[in-house]
Amino acid sequence: MANLDLMRELAIEGQTKILLLVMDGLGGLPLKPDGPTELEAARTPNLDALAARSICGMSTPITPGITPGSGPGHMALFGYDPLQYEIGRGVLEALGIGFDLQPADLAARGNFCTLDSQGLITDRRAGRIPTQVGTKLCEKLRQVRLPGVETFVEPVKEYRFVLVLRGEDLYDGLTETDPQQTGKPPLPVEPLRPEATSTAKLLNQWLAEARKLLSDEHPANGCNLRGIAKDPGLPLMPQVYKLRCGAIATYPMYRGVAKLAGMDVLPTGDTIETEVETLQDHWADYDFFFFHVKKTDSRGEDGDFAAKAQVIEHLDSVMPDILALEPDVVIITGDHSTPAALKAHSWHELPILLWSKHIRPDGVSEFGERPCMTGGLGHIYHPDLLPLAMAYAGRLAKFGA
Amino acid sequence: MANLDLMRELAIEGQTKILLLVMDGLGGLPLKPDGPTELEAARTPNLDALAARSICGMSTPITPGITPGSGPGHMALFGYDPLQYEIGRGVLEALGIGFDLQPADLAARGNFCTLDSQGLITDRRAGRIPTQVGTKLCEKLRQVRLPGVETFVEPVKEYRFVLVLRGEDLYDGLTETDPQQTGKPPLPVEPLRPEATSTAKLLNQWLAEARKLLSDEHPANGCNLRGIAKDPGLPLMPQVYKLRCGAIATYPMYRGVAKLAGMDVLPTGDTIETEVETLQDHWADYDFFFFHVKKTDSRGEDGDFAAKAQVIEHLDSVMPDILALEPDVVIITGDHSTPAALKAHSWHELPILLWSKHIRPDGVSEFGERPCMTGGLGHIYHPDLLPLAMAYAGRLAKFGA
Repeated sequence: MANLDLMRELAIEGQTKILLLVMDGLGGLPLKPDGPTELEAARTPNLDALAARSICGMSTPITPGITPGSGPGHMALFGYDPLQYEIGRGVLEALGIGFDLQPADLAARGNFCTLDSQGLITDRRAGRIPTQVGTKLCEKLRQVRLPGVETFVEPVKEYRFVLVLRGEDLYDGLTETDPQQTGKPPLPVEPLRPEATSTAKLLNQWLAEARKLLSDEHPANGCNLRGIAKDPGLPLMPQVYKLRCGAIATYPMYRGVAKLAGMDVLPTGDTIETEVETLQDHWADYDFFFFHVKKTDSRGEDGDFAAKAQVIEHLDSVMPDILALEPDVVIITGDHSTPAALKAHSWHELPILLWSKHIRPDGVSEFGERPCMTGGLGHIYHPDLLPLAMAYAGRLAKFGA
Repeated sequence: MANLDLMRELAIEGQTKILLLVMDGLGGLPLKPDGPTELEAARTPNLDALAARSICGMSTPITPGITPGSGPGHMALFGYDPLQYEIGRGVLEALGIGFDLQPADLAARGNFCTLDSQGLITDRRAGRIPTQVGTKLCEKLRQVRLPGVETFVEPVKEYRFVLVLRGEDLYDGLTETDPQQTGKPPLPVEPLRPEATSTAKLLNQWLAEARKLLSDEHPANGCNLRGIAKDPGLPLMPQVYKLRCGAIATYPMYRGVAKLAGMDVLPTGDTIETEVETLQDHWADYDFFFFHVKKTDSRGEDGDFAAKAQVIEHLDSVMPDILALEPDVVIITGDHSTPAALKAHSWHELPILLWSKHIRPDGVSEFGERPCMTGGLGHIYHPDLLPLAMAYAGRLAKFGA
């Protein structure tokens, strides 16, 4: 599989432009055995015409059978092996709400929970309290002060929140407090390496004061911290690939992951049309664009087959505007499958379309899961997509003499 | 992917014969989207008939998107992971001119350059002086003597030469002197490990005297050394695979790489016909033959689509003579693609044909990139080809009980 050291060694600068178009959760399933998938059901004359001039295939985001979360799915698309480069849950949660995370910040995903009179957990999600209630509780928790560090408590959804510590000498490598079952007390934060000892102490102090403040609440009279982590300090795409990278995404999570990878996050609006305008406006300024379409995944999670197909048709309708910019390499795929039939992310492979002047035509003339299964790219892995794009863009030197 | 320890453990001796037929730079591209590749355009009745009795597929030499040089491309065909087993540029250059490199020799690729009066490089290639001039300068540089080691200076082409040091206690692990940009002075050779310190000193002494001798030349009044390296001491094919290995190639580079892998290099002539005669003459003496056809790559590099197709037709015409020898396993592929459309090595996969009595027919009845995309071998990697050949030749024991 692709490796970043090799990319760093071989990448060369150029004038060519690469467009990575990600329809989140693109991969689907038929509702009945003979039926089409969402992508196959969608009327997509522009994508089909492009597929006919492209080389197609199927791609596995991580390894066969593994269902990726949004973080690892995108990491893989950006060329990082998600098993080697992990982003902690706390960091992903903070990015997901658009929190302006700094490299030295420590972030944790918080869960409100219910404790009995002996301090044992009776409900790990505090009866899934409404977001409104969670928001008020977060306001309360902002009273907690820690010596020498700034704290941020931000609501997410229902019983979930984000805790961020900002200061010097904060270390990750810390255990979670959620014992993962009821009838047990929350665990203390423990350091997994010596440097993290004082950070563990700070977090335990925060937890003690937080639980004191929550003690007369009901049902959310306690809380847990999970996935306590820092920005992993990834090798940055502009340095590894010698690409000026711009990210266009309507949701904070994807902007955040792109930022961790070293992309410039371009301000955009809420619709696919505004994303296309952003692409047009910045076309001259970047070599690589990550263009993210969110709602394929949202409608898949809703279990709404027709609505997911409509989002794909919507994207299809703007393809002429996108292609009018004359990118040198276009890759279209998703970060993971989200079949409406499953109402959830899944492990299924993603259809891929790769267009450039230098492809070998493979006879695939429709962009869909079944046609792509016979495509000339065969079955590949997400982290190989960016190296392929680099090669087709003429941006990789020869390896060895 | 294949690993040599496993091969060493499982390889068994036998009476069967394996033929690896390499058309250098075989993979191509169509000149227009609907057109054939060079291989598809060539009239190849014998290869097509063989494909119909074979299992076919596509193979990636290194990893997706990586364009191999000749060295790594052949290493992969010989079963070595080219990312693990690297051959230094100096060694490849020496092999490329047919220099009889010994295991203890240290070889460097030299470049003549132009220096200004302050010793800064103004042209890294000395105005691409003609080969004739380079040859004269090499003769001059043969005057440089070093204590305790023998030196060889051999011209390559234009501004390129090879420097070989022969003696005891020469170590590689040395930096290059070319700063890779003009306006800077040549760098000294620095040791990257303590053992290489005295070798660095010798090379710096050679460089100082060489530059003194060149100082009144124009424009080649300086020189640089790159890719300073020794024979990497590969695990040898006869020991790993228990195969008596013979190499038939018309160009020094391929004979050299085969020799590094432990093959006997068989004297042959300049044409495919003489190569076939060599194969016939030595058929009884070896279990494995590497048969190399150079000119597919040369015509691809020339950008001459029709001439590349003609070389393939030429090889096709001798296939009956080759098959009359009754090999047990035949693999036909290339070390990398060299599409005439690109006039250069490329990253595209190679078509593969594997024939033996024991294959599962896959319905592919023509040897070409598009037919091979649907072949029964799927998409594999070059280092897996030799283990497959070993298996089909009945030369690998079962793994585990």
